[in-house]
Amino acid sequence: MLREMEEQPDAVRRTLEALLPLRSEVAGLFAGRRRVLFVARGSSDNAAIYGRYLLETHAGVVGGLAAPSVATHYRSELDLTDTLVVSVSQSGATEEIVATQDWARSCGGATVAVANVADSPLVRAADLALVTAAGPELAVPATKSYLAQLVAMAVVATALAPAPTALDGELGLVAGEVERLLEQRSGVEEAARQLATTAYTVVSGRGLMMGTALETALKLEETCLRPVRGYSYADLRHGPISVVTAGMTAVLVAAPDGPMLAPMTELAGDLAARGATTIGIGGDAGFAGACSLAVAGPDLPEAVAPMGAIVASQLVVEALARELGLDPDNPRGLAKVTTTDPAS
Amino acid sequence: MLREMEEQPDAVRRTLEALLPLRSEVAGLFAGRRRVLFVARGSSDNAAIYGRYLLETHAGVVGGLAAPSVATHYRSELDLTDTLVVSVSQSGATEEIVATQDWARSCGGATVAVANVADSPLVRAADLALVTAAGPELAVPATKSYLAQLVAMAVVATALAPAPTALDGELGLVAGEVERLLEQRSGVEEAARQLATTAYTVVSGRGLMMGTALETALKLEETCLRPVRGYSYADLRHGPISVVTAGMTAVLVAAPDGPMLAPMTELAGDLAARGATTIGIGGDAGFAGACSLAVAGPDLPEAVAPMGAIVASQLVVEALARELGLDPDNPRGLAKVTTTDPAS
Repeated sequence: MLREMEEQPDAVRRTLEALLPLRSEVAGLFAGRRRVLFVARGSSDNAAIYGRYLLETHAGVVGGLAAPSVATHYRSELDLTDTLVVSVSQSGATEEIVATQDWARSCGGATVAVANVADSPLVRAADLALVTAAGPELAVPATKSYLAQLVAMAVVATALAPAPTALDGELGLVAGEVERLLEQRSGVEEAARQLATTAYTVVSGRGLMMGTALETALKLEETCLRPVRGYSYADLRHGPISVVTAGMTAVLVAAPDGPMLAPMTELAGDLAARGATTIGIGGDAGFAGACSLAVAGPDLPEAVAPMGAIVASQLVVEALARELGLDPDNPRGLAKVTTTDPAS
Repeated sequence: MLREMEEQPDAVRRTLEALLPLRSEVAGLFAGRRRVLFVARGSSDNAAIYGRYLLETHAGVVGGLAAPSVATHYRSELDLTDTLVVSVSQSGATEEIVATQDWARSCGGATVAVANVADSPLVRAADLALVTAAGPELAVPATKSYLAQLVAMAVVATALAPAPTALDGELGLVAGEVERLLEQRSGVEEAARQLATTAYTVVSGRGLMMGTALETALKLEETCLRPVRGYSYADLRHGPISVVTAGMTAVLVAAPDGPMLAPMTELAGDLAARGATTIGIGGDAGFAGACSLAVAGPDLPEAVAPMGAIVASQLVVEALARELGLDPDNPRGLAKVTTTDPAS
């Protein structure tokens, strides 16, 4: 896992190099259509959540996430002739995602496959393939392939934006920041030691950082085999904050700027007042100061900050697995190519 | 809470009586539009998830859930001229939802408000109001208002279906089944006793029952102040199933028929093989037999089964709160009108 994490700066550069030239093809496929529907599961779903926020906030295009069972089990006929369908799967071989992409195509959707394996069923069946260049991923937890998916999401957003945006230039900053975070590891060991002593952990983030929070929770849970729950900021505030008590650890992920920084900083204070230990990943100095422990995040604008923040999260997860004496590469009970319905 | 739960058969009848005549107005507002976007948070969000599945599986209309922060914090301009926006809030006063509905309208969306309070900001600002007739709800946990929201979702689905469907007749079966479940309480106390001894609980459901699983998890968590996690069947299978171990309790909700019954029954067996105690809510005899404990669910077709299954869940939640010596009406830290961002 650590070796693959360290390959991420190159994975970002290679993926940008591979995908940026395809933007006009993405735009061409979208022409005359109005919305984007993402099809994904697990980590890829968290990447798609980022894609959806980025499209809606930086490209002015309505996005949404498919409910795959509508395709695979209910076999509904929907009109997707106004829709660009973006399917996301590391292996490109997850049956449920392949089947849902096929269904979307039969409903009139134009299909783009984002996969890390060029010779895969998802890629072969799509109208256009965005093959991420993370290189073969051997550890079960997706790290570099997840980051490459985020890059692909940003490429789609810049392709569909009606005019050039700041995002175009910001993408070029990511690889360098990822490199710096991997080297610096500021706060990582302290955060892992805290998490190792906690029976229950919640993770929260908001807006463009929502997918990062969910992915951080999923990775903590899958790698460390303990219950960890990811909440949107708003869902947490809306009710479940009542279960936050002394002894619990809350991990908060934030970008160093943007409209979510102030509410996330306030949330850190509120959770501390309830007795929780808070670990802040990213944010600015004020956010870090409002948290019990701070893990350095990227110095990147909010739109691309998730690509750095997830690296900080990975470092914590990997350190926690070591702290607990677990093998980060092969968590119990997980397979690399996931299946939703066991073959019968 | 219990008294309000017992008012549910009447709440269903009154809400149907109030809303069924408005179906042509809903259809009129939808005319020329192609999709439905739900705006909601918390329990209302779980009702909206049911609404989305029901629309896609029984009305042939594409649905989706809004990301409210895109409106309230990023203030994006999106084109919603092809969209019917259905906002759902018990009080009709949740600021975030009111603001998101206003935003959707300014983006060209036609707006329908589903609220239990006629004289509320959400209702006043909508193009059309579907005021549920659950009556005033005093307990903090939403019970009858949630069920009335499900009724409203089904009314919207029948209004938008291009031709009459079986759903029209099935709606008339709900109130009687709710009555029977409230009386029968089969398996309720046993389930509550099991949950009272468990440190960690997961809840799972799929497709039309997905919202029911999430609502069951939210209610268990909010009312009983313990961490409870709701997963879709597929998300659980995709990874987090690895954290399911002996000593954990898994609550599974299923309809007595439909394409999800077989996979949910299989999941019950798999979770039991991992050492979890499984509590089945609903399903058929085979599903009940595959679970360690069975709580009787409704004898209703899958499309309307969530309206009965949630009542079985409420009975378990209420019994568990009593078992733990907690006040089910006033869980710690929750307010009846929820706010996402505290007023500053």
